[in-house]
Parts: sequence; structure tokens; C-alpha cells
Amino acid sequence: MVDVTTFASETDTQTLTGQMIVAGTMVTGAGTEVRGFDPAAGTALEPAYRHGDLAVVEAACAAAAEAFGPYRATTSAQRAKFLEAIAANIEAAAEVLIPRAVAETGLPHARITGEVGRTCGQLRLFAAVLREGSWNGARIDSALPERTPAPRADIRQRTVPLGPVAVFGASNFPLAFSVAGGDTASALAAGCPVVVKGHDAHPGTSELVGRAVAKAVADAGLPAGTFSLLFGSGRKLGTALVTDARIKAVGFTGSRSGGTALVAAAAARPEPIPVYAEMSSINPVFLLPGALSTRGAELGAAFVGSLTMGSGQFCTNPGLVIAVDGPDLDTFVAAATEALAQAAPTPMLTPNIAKSYADGVRDLEGAADVLARGQAADSSTACQAALFSTDAAGFLASDVLQAEVFGASSLVIRCADADEVASVASKLEGQLTATVHADDSDTAEAARLLPVLELKAGRILFNGWPTGVEVGYAMVHGGPFPATSDSRTTSVGAKAIERFLRPVSYQDVPKSLLPSAIADGNPDHLWRLIDGRFTQD
Amino acid sequence: MVDVTTFASETDTQTLTGQMIVAGTMVTGAGTEVRGFDPAAGTALEPAYRHGDLAVVEAACAAAAEAFGPYRATTSAQRAKFLEAIAANIEAAAEVLIPRAVAETGLPHARITGEVGRTCGQLRLFAAVLREGSWNGARIDSALPERTPAPRADIRQRTVPLGPVAVFGASNFPLAFSVAGGDTASALAAGCPVVVKGHDAHPGTSELVGRAVAKAVADAGLPAGTFSLLFGSGRKLGTALVTDARIKAVGFTGSRSGGTALVAAAAARPEPIPVYAEMSSINPVFLLPGALSTRGAELGAAFVGSLTMGSGQFCTNPGLVIAVDGPDLDTFVAAATEALAQAAPTPMLTPNIAKSYADGVRDLEGAADVLARGQAADSSTACQAALFSTDAAGFLASDVLQAEVFGASSLVIRCADADEVASVASKLEGQLTATVHADDSDTAEAARLLPVLELKAGRILFNGWPTGVEVGYAMVHGGPFPATSDSRTTSVGAKAIERFLRPVSYQDVPKSLLPSAIADGNPDHLWRLIDGRFTQD
Repeated sequence: MVDVTTFASETDTQTLTGQMIVAGTMVTGAGTEVRGFDPAAGTALEPAYRHGDLAVVEAACAAAAEAFGPYRATTSAQRAKFLEAIAANIEAAAEVLIPRAVAETGLPHARITGEVGRTCGQLRLFAAVLREGSWNGARIDSALPERTPAPRADIRQRTVPLGPVAVFGASNFPLAFSVAGGDTASALAAGCPVVVKGHDAHPGTSELVGRAVAKAVADAGLPAGTFSLLFGSGRKLGTALVTDARIKAVGFTGSRSGGTALVAAAAARPEPIPVYAEMSSINPVFLLPGALSTRGAELGAAFVGSLTMGSGQFCTNPGLVIAVDGPDLDTFVAAATEALAQAAPTPMLTPNIAKSYADGVRDLEGAADVLARGQAADSSTACQAALFSTDAAGFLASDVLQAEVFGASSLVIRCADADEVASVASKLEGQLTATVHADDSDTAEAARLLPVLELKAGRILFNGWPTGVEVGYAMVHGGPFPATSDSRTTSVGAKAIERFLRPVSYQDVPKSLLPSAIADGNPDHLWRLIDGRFTQD
Repeated sequence: MVDVTTFASETDTQTLTGQMIVAGTMVTGAGTEVRGFDPAAGTALEPAYRHGDLAVVEAACAAAAEAFGPYRATTSAQRAKFLEAIAANIEAAAEVLIPRAVAETGLPHARITGEVGRTCGQLRLFAAVLREGSWNGARIDSALPERTPAPRADIRQRTVPLGPVAVFGASNFPLAFSVAGGDTASALAAGCPVVVKGHDAHPGTSELVGRAVAKAVADAGLPAGTFSLLFGSGRKLGTALVTDARIKAVGFTGSRSGGTALVAAAAARPEPIPVYAEMSSINPVFLLPGALSTRGAELGAAFVGSLTMGSGQFCTNPGLVIAVDGPDLDTFVAAATEALAQAAPTPMLTPNIAKSYADGVRDLEGAADVLARGQAADSSTACQAALFSTDAAGFLASDVLQAEVFGASSLVIRCADADEVASVASKLEGQLTATVHADDSDTAEAARLLPVLELKAGRILFNGWPTGVEVGYAMVHGGPFPATSDSRTTSVGAKAIERFLRPVSYQDVPKSLLPSAIADGNPDHLWRLIDGRFTQD
């Protein structure tokens, strides 16, 4: 390691150094050079970053393991303040951070500004979750010394954090699913140190956010190993991170191939660990007859708005439209075609993503009918939106048509009747979202679809569009495989903290040694399940 | 399939037929013959059972998939009554069931009687869990139509069941971890149909309990596919079951090799599914200096009681004793040696288990010092208890000494000092339990151990013995790998239901279509998290 500066002593946190952050220390990598790339301007950005080697993985994991004990011993209130400090530091860097993220992603200024707000809101949500306290899962079964034939011991339960967590930043949300995104925020909230592998697509954004986190670590007097930010290849550095014995869970947002590779690596460890990979979803949209009849044109225009937003680079992009064929669907398609024809080409996040998109669209052209294209791309990194159609039999027979094409591409499935709509629904793979557009007259049909969709998707929404994932208590951003690798969880919203916790029972543990969450007198003022009844007493 | 009788028409549910139960139909297998074996008498029991072929797996899974929709549509109250009916049917069969289970296992009558009670208590606990309702995970984030820059939708969350569950009966708890044991009870409670692979060690017990379940299914008018009981080899029938696309989760209690094989099979599916395997644990017992000084002899005798109970065939059998070497530990060892010398040989569950035990003890004899043996076994299927000792360095250097030997064998680790005790603790693999014997004078030492043990075990208990797992709300029977394949769960107690559920969000779903758990007006009277606050309103 060279060019080491003690982070905590820095006052300037907004000038890019091109370095990684290993437990509070700035470290320059020696591997492959990586630069932010401005897809709008088509230029590489300063400074150069370099991939780290296995020594930085070793150093970050060793520091994280050392930090784990003291970090998890902090109170909920301390961790809540720490998360809020991260949010404040990110906001303080906004003047530098927002233009850098815009440059590195080609995403509009307003979108990035919104994403800063969302990222900070997410950190503050977990601060609120920590203060609310039900994540402790506190339960007490009182001793029954007189019970026959055998007395019952005093048994209490609470959660403990799993240990250091590896987080893989996503390309498409340079803030909200990256260095201080939902995975990091929820893992830190749970009491787990975090080692982030930043995405090569936005190293400058990653460094700025990483330094906002590291400054909060230092300011709070937390162990430096609580947070590290590394750069490296997924196959080498990423695999080393996931297979390091000190890492106890993994958060990932990205491709199906990337996610399944991490799941396999984690399962092959001497001690397998959970991987929370949010991967692949085509987000079916069902247009029921009543809705289609009364507002087909309006739906067509709104659909294209959701489809093309951010060049379609959302996990929840509506990649599938399912409806009964007929004049009302024609109206929808006509409006969508018209809107799509006006859709200007927009830059995609990276040249690689643009190439994958172009390849995916080419595959679809061979497997389905082209309904419409957006305006022709003016550069090789721009997204030309695309809309295709097929029938139910064609869809169900084709693996190509069921695969996610990341970008502003969607497929309309013209079904013969409601039975065929239900049949298509029942044969879908797992999804992050399923959307239903329905009027009152569609209630019977919607009621028939709902139980099918409940088994297919993490979130079911009516009369809206799946893009835009609210960060709250009730959100599920998850779903059955291949939407995620673990359908029992969510990567957005309050419940995401549970991914990094496990329950422990304490039987007849002396009062003086009991954690406060399950202590007598309820010093943390938690809602607890006492002898099977919820109470705040 | 031959010899088919419609189960629901049967009135005699207590005469053994030697058949499997495939969705309410009695089916005779055509594969390998299996018989219950009375290890105490050394005789095979009537009737003969036969392993099923892949056709019964197909039939059971098809029926389970068909049953899933209507079964999960039942109300919590209906499922609660159904579970209570199973318990009542098991109790009604007790006069036949208990002697059969005693004969098939060699376990004492009192133990089996207790296990019937425990099994029925477990079913009733899940009935209570269903009525309490927090398993629904009901959350509501209210719509904020006036919010800027964007309004917030109405978002609600509840859990849905995963789908049909495969349950593998364990050998060592012919009732409580078998056909209607904790896995089955919690999966049925969650709304998941169950296909059980009964353990070959107790086919008659399995049939009796299976018929008690199937009768309850029929009496409640539930779809017959809600429950099936198959016999077959783990490698063939078991793998077919776990890799059937209609099975969505697996519950297993057994060996580390068996559990990891199922985990691998489930992970290799096109759609991977969770496997809850409870596998291997040596359950360390820490004797702290104060406790050892004041009651070393008493602890030694009590330890042997826990060690030899049920021939040591418990997942929570105390296989490791860790203490600082010295005269007080000598006192403990002397008392344990004396008690062990009086321990009569007791039958083990099966000849295979007895052979594995004898092999394991032979391995330990080569790797540690023999402190004491129980009385010599009078048959090849009896367990001769064994106690070994080694030092910390010897333990940490040996894989053999860290492996579970299923049966009444334990190892005392003589440590040089408290640091070495802590060092051994920190290097243990994951455990179901960790036990601490401590007096008031040991509080500082116990406080130092506790955070280490929290990361190693599912349950930490003080001044007791790990055998005997209370079935309640706060119990965790789980722990880090290799104790289980999923440390975030428990296979005993109320929280076990969560293994078979996943959360789903409902965004702007019309009121008329909302599930009752998240409906306005709280018709199910649940505790719900509304806008981040718990309320029963």
C-alpha cells in the first residue's frame, strides 16, 4: 500500500484523490486503471482510480472483524446518530457530489438530486428504525418454576448482527444502491461493519460518498474498520471478499449472472453465508379490459414515460405488458407507439450497458414483432427505446422473450382472453413488481389475478407504474428467484435490516448480564412479545 | 400404485397398514423393504413397509401444488383448528402410538409419553401463534397525496406462504421432529402443504402420526394434497422431492452430510429454494471457576445425567466441557467419572447410529485421553457412554475432536487460564447451544464470554443443561453453520413459522381486494406497524 493518508485528519473531503478507503486510510490501488466515464460527453474523467489487490481485501476484512465487537456494542441511539451524520456529510458534499454523479452516469441533474435525497432519507429511515426498536425482536417467556412435570426456565430472545457485510455497489443507482445505499445503511444499522466494492462505473461518486461515511465513522469515534471502500474486479476482488471467512453476509444489486456467481461462491465456503442479490425482473404490467377501455390512450403515454425514464435503467422497469387483444389494446399500443416515436435517445450508464442493451434488443427483434422504436441513437452509448409484441404462446415458448433486457425495452403480449392472461401470469418467473391497471368493472378479474401475483412478485401495485420505489416501513423490493436470491427479504425499506440479524435465546441468563432489549423493566421502551402477547410494559 | 384405500372413509386409524399416504390415499410402495426395528429386543417389527418410487413423489407434489391455493386461502382460525385437530388425533392414538414408538426407538416409555405431549403442545402453540397474528407482519404506510415533490402511494405489507414444503423426519425424535413435528406444524401453520419423507427408523410411528394428520385434513374438508407421507431413500426419493419444482422450501433435522447434500441439491435447482437443515452441534459447556469451586462434584453428576439421557441422542447433547485446569476441575471430573461408571448401557435408535457412535468413540480414543467409560454395552446396538479429555492446543489442532459424535460422548478441555477458555470459545464452529455455569463471583468472566457465545450459538443458557428444548415464543433452536444451514431461523418455537413466509407489498390495491390482515379497520385485530408505530387500532 502506498500514498497512505490518515483519513480522520483530513478536513477537505471533497477533492477527489483516486484512492480507496481501507478502514479510515486512503489507499492507492496498483491494479487495472478505472476512470469515471461521462456517457453524455463521451469522455473519461479525472482522476484515475486503480483496482485494489487481495492485500486490501485482507486489510479491510481484518479491520472489519476487529471493529465488529465494539461497533455492535454501540447503542441503537449511537448508531442512529452515526447514520444521520453520514446523511449530513453526503448533503454537505452535494455541490461536488451531484455534478460528479451526473457526469459519471449521464443521468439528469434532477434525478441525481432526487437520489441524494433518497439516499439520505434512507439513512434517516434506518435511524428511525433503530429508535423504534422492533428490529430487536425482543421476546420473553417468563419462568414457570412451579410447572409440572418440569419447570420452565426464563427464556428471552433478541437479535444480534451477523458480522461484517460485503456490499456490491450497483451501476444504475450511483447513490441509493451504492456505497451508502440501502444495503450499507441497513447493515450498519444492524450493527455490522461494511466493506463496499464500489462500482467501476462511478468511482468518483463512490469516493465522495465513501469519504462521507468514513468521516462519520471517525467523528463518532467508531473503529475505523467499521467501513471500507474498495475498487476491483468482481471476479477477483469480489470473489475474494465474499469468500473471506470474516465476511458473514453479502448485499448485491446487479445482473442475474453476477448475483448467481456470488451466491455460488458464498455457498461453497467452509461456512456458507447468506447472499442478498437483487438481480433480474421484467415487471409485468397487466392491463385489464375496463381500464384499457376507458383510458387506453392515456395508459399508453404514461407507460412510455415509465419505460423510458432514466433510459429504462431501473430494476423495476416495465418490461412486459399483458392484455387481451382487441381494439382497446390497439388504442394503447397506438398511443405508446406515438409517445415512443418522440422519445429522444438518452445516454446509458456505461458503454457496456449500452452494448448489452443493443444486443438484447437485437435478440428481441428476432423473436418478436417490432411495434415501435424511439428516436435513433446519436451515439453508441445512447439508448434507443424499443417496443415489441408477441402472443401468449410465442412468449411462453421463448426464453429470449422472458429474459430481462436492461434498458428502455418492453414487450406487449396479446392474449386471446382472460384465461390466457391468467395462464401467462402463472408461468412467469419471480418478479420485483407486478402491476395491474384496473377499473371498478375489472374487480372480478383483478381478484382472480391477485393470488397468482402474490406468489410471483415482491410488490403488487394498482393503477400506477413500477418505477419509483418508495422507501418506507411497508416496502418490499424483493421477490422470488430470479428477482432476488432470497425472497424472504427486501433490499429497500425498514425490513431490510432483518437481513443482517439473527435471533439468539438467553435462558436463565443472570439479570446483570442481560442485554437491555430483553432486560426486566424494559429500559429501551420496546414493544416486546411477553408470554405471547405484545406489550410495551 | 396398488392397494389404494380412500383414507377419509376409514374409521380405524390405529391398525398399521405398512403404507404411505399420498394426498389422502393409502399407497403401498414397491421398493426396498423397511421395517421398524426394536433395538431393545433386537427384533424386526411388523408390518413391512416399502420405499416409494418417483411416481409417489410426483403424485404427492402435484397434489400439494393443487392444494396450495385453497389451503393458503383458509383463515388463521381455520388453520388453528386444523392443527388442534391433529393434536387431538395424535392423543387419541396414544395407546397404540406410544408402545409402537417405544418399540421402534428403544427410548423409555416416559420419554415417548413426554414427546407426545411436546408434539401436541407444539401443534397447539402454532394454533396460538396463528390466533395472535403477528406472523402476518402487517405494516401500513399511509398515502401522502399532498407530499412534494411526489405524493406517496398507500403501501401495505403482509406475509404469504412460500408454497409446498418438504419435511424430512429425524431419527432421534420420532414424534417431535418427525411426521407432525415442528417443521410440519410450522409449515402447515404458515399455509404451506407438507410432503413428509418419514424416517426409516420408525415407519410404524410415522404411519400412525401421518394418519392422524390425514384424518384431520379430511375432517376439516381441506384439499387432500395438504399432507402426504412418503418413505424412501434420502438419496433417491429425498433428492427427487427437494428438486421437484413445486416444492418451495425444505425442513430437515439430521446429519451434517445429509443436510449439506440437501442444501446443495436445493441450490442447484433452476429456482433455488431455502433449506432449513438442523445438523451438527457439540454444545459447549463452560464451567467458570466460582461455580466449579462451590459445586464441582454436583455439576459432574448432573452433567452425566444430561450426557447420557436418551443415550445422548440429542442435538443439544453436551459434547464439550471447557474449564480452567486445576483441583476444582479434578473434582468435577471425579464426580463425572463416578457417575459415568454407573451409567448402564442403553439402546441406541438404530444399528447404524450405534455403529457410527462406536466409530466416533474409537476416533476420539485415538485423539484424546480417555477419562471414563460407562458400563460395557451388552449388545451391538447399545451405547456405552464415554468421557475424554484434552488440552486447548490439542482440541484446536484436531478436526476429529471438533466433530459431533452422536451419542453419549463428551470431551473435557483443560485450559491453562481464562484467556485460553475465551480463545477456545472464539474458535468454535456454530452451535445450537452454549452453556455457562457461573456463580456470582464469575460475573466478570461470564460477561467476557457472553458476546463471544452470542456469535456462536442459537441459545445461551446459564446454570442448566442444554438437553431439553422448551417449545415457546422465545426459543431459538438454531445457530450458525454447521448447527444449521440458516442461522437466521429456528426450528423450534413460535418463530419457526417465519421460515415458510415471505413479505409482499400491496401498493394502492383497491380496498375491496386487500387481504384482511392489512385491511382498513383491522378486522383481524392484529398488532400492525402503521407509519412506523405499533398499534392494534
